[in-house]
Amino acid sequence: MEKSQLKPHQFSEHEREALYRTIYSRRDVRGQFTDEPVSDEMFSRILMAAHYAPSVGFMQPWSFIIVRGDDTKRKVHALFEKAHAEAAEMFEGEKRETYRNLKLEGILEAPINICVTCDKDRAGPVVVGRTHIPEMDLYSTVCAVQNMWLAARAEGLGLGWVSILDQDRLKQTLDIPDRVVPVAYLCIGHVSHFHDKPELQKAGWRERLHIDELTHFERFDQGATDDDATRLLAQLRTQQQSIENTA
Amino acid sequence: MEKSQLKPHQFSEHEREALYRTIYSRRDVRGQFTDEPVSDEMFSRILMAAHYAPSVGFMQPWSFIIVRGDDTKRKVHALFEKAHAEAAEMFEGEKRETYRNLKLEGILEAPINICVTCDKDRAGPVVVGRTHIPEMDLYSTVCAVQNMWLAARAEGLGLGWVSILDQDRLKQTLDIPDRVVPVAYLCIGHVSHFHDKPELQKAGWRERLHIDELTHFERFDQGATDDDATRLLAQLRTQQQSIENTA
Repeated sequence: MEKSQLKPHQFSEHEREALYRTIYSRRDVRGQFTDEPVSDEMFSRILMAAHYAPSVGFMQPWSFIIVRGDDTKRKVHALFEKAHAEAAEMFEGEKRETYRNLKLEGILEAPINICVTCDKDRAGPVVVGRTHIPEMDLYSTVCAVQNMWLAARAEGLGLGWVSILDQDRLKQTLDIPDRVVPVAYLCIGHVSHFHDKPELQKAGWRERLHIDELTHFERFDQGATDDDATRLLAQLRTQQQSIENTA
Repeated sequence: MEKSQLKPHQFSEHEREALYRTIYSRRDVRGQFTDEPVSDEMFSRILMAAHYAPSVGFMQPWSFIIVRGDDTKRKVHALFEKAHAEAAEMFEGEKRETYRNLKLEGILEAPINICVTCDKDRAGPVVVGRTHIPEMDLYSTVCAVQNMWLAARAEGLGLGWVSILDQDRLKQTLDIPDRVVPVAYLCIGHVSHFHDKPELQKAGWRERLHIDELTHFERFDQGATDDDATRLLAQLRTQQQSIENTA
């Protein structure tokens, strides 16, 4: 990070480093949960981080269903097992075996599960900014999840997003009404350790892509069109190399 | 924040405060853009924050179309004006006038626009974790947007999400192929100031909701079922009051 003078409204170098450290070390945690209880103060801070996410038309469409009871967790885990078996059938050959061996959830081990929902009627039928993209309220809810994920990492809590679930059955299990969408089912708790890289990257399932190859100018798939663009791409390559070598 | 000993893997109090300060002071910026150029280093850092977001099946489905040309910006701005006029007609009476007076985008004023897209074919037809919720790749892309939004705030850059656009026309304008979804159109740049509260909150359009009323236990809409739940709700109320009084 450059040592030059701060720009107006820019946070200090230490503050920015804290944010970037959070972003780079956040993981989708499926195992490693311990049974140490999460304090009310810590739990409140990660929920509040979610509540202060951006939302379309200041709609704040989210609700949080906190699941701590073994009975509910077992029902949701059964939904996962069914969906996971269905999913395995969709992969071919070697990939299927690898898939079966991936640990993809920590529903029973994590002390806390949270279902983050989106109430599409939270602010009436017409919402500022949702008129042309009806999914905007779902996207706002995802922003809340990502805020919670980063807050959890900074607090030392693992958080994993379980998406291998039949949504209709999940709604039945948690008494979620028709108008409300269960956007994310999360497992949260203290952990023995965090992985240094994403588990699918470590397992060789997929590689980290090169960001300069995903960056286009003025139109989709158009490469650098001027010196500014070329310089930015070079900067991106250098920064990504440095991150990958450090982690 | 309690001064007690750090938990394992927990970041220091200063580091956590930096993250929470970023989350609470982030704004959806529509005006206040200045013409000060954004340095390559800063620009690279906010794009990289996006690239290190979580993604379903480590799919990394995002691409970034950087728009800096006046010609492209003017075309997108025309799409906004058309959609905005259509949207105004959907509001009734007084709300329509208020809506018309809201400043909802900074397409022409912001030095940089970025369209963040999601390529549904990035990792083949079957993706770990997307088998039962096909929107998971869109959600991953939103996580990338939220990371970028937080990084921008820490860098002192304003970022606004323009969602009042016809998606099909936007795809035509930016040559985005069928399989790719334009998830977010963002305006980014240095700003004269950040608002202390969300603009729609300041304008009296909607109030900040009480998080304890959005927090349920075991099932949707079920209140506190035990002492743990009651204590958590009290903690949430106290924390939210403290945030609202400070801001």
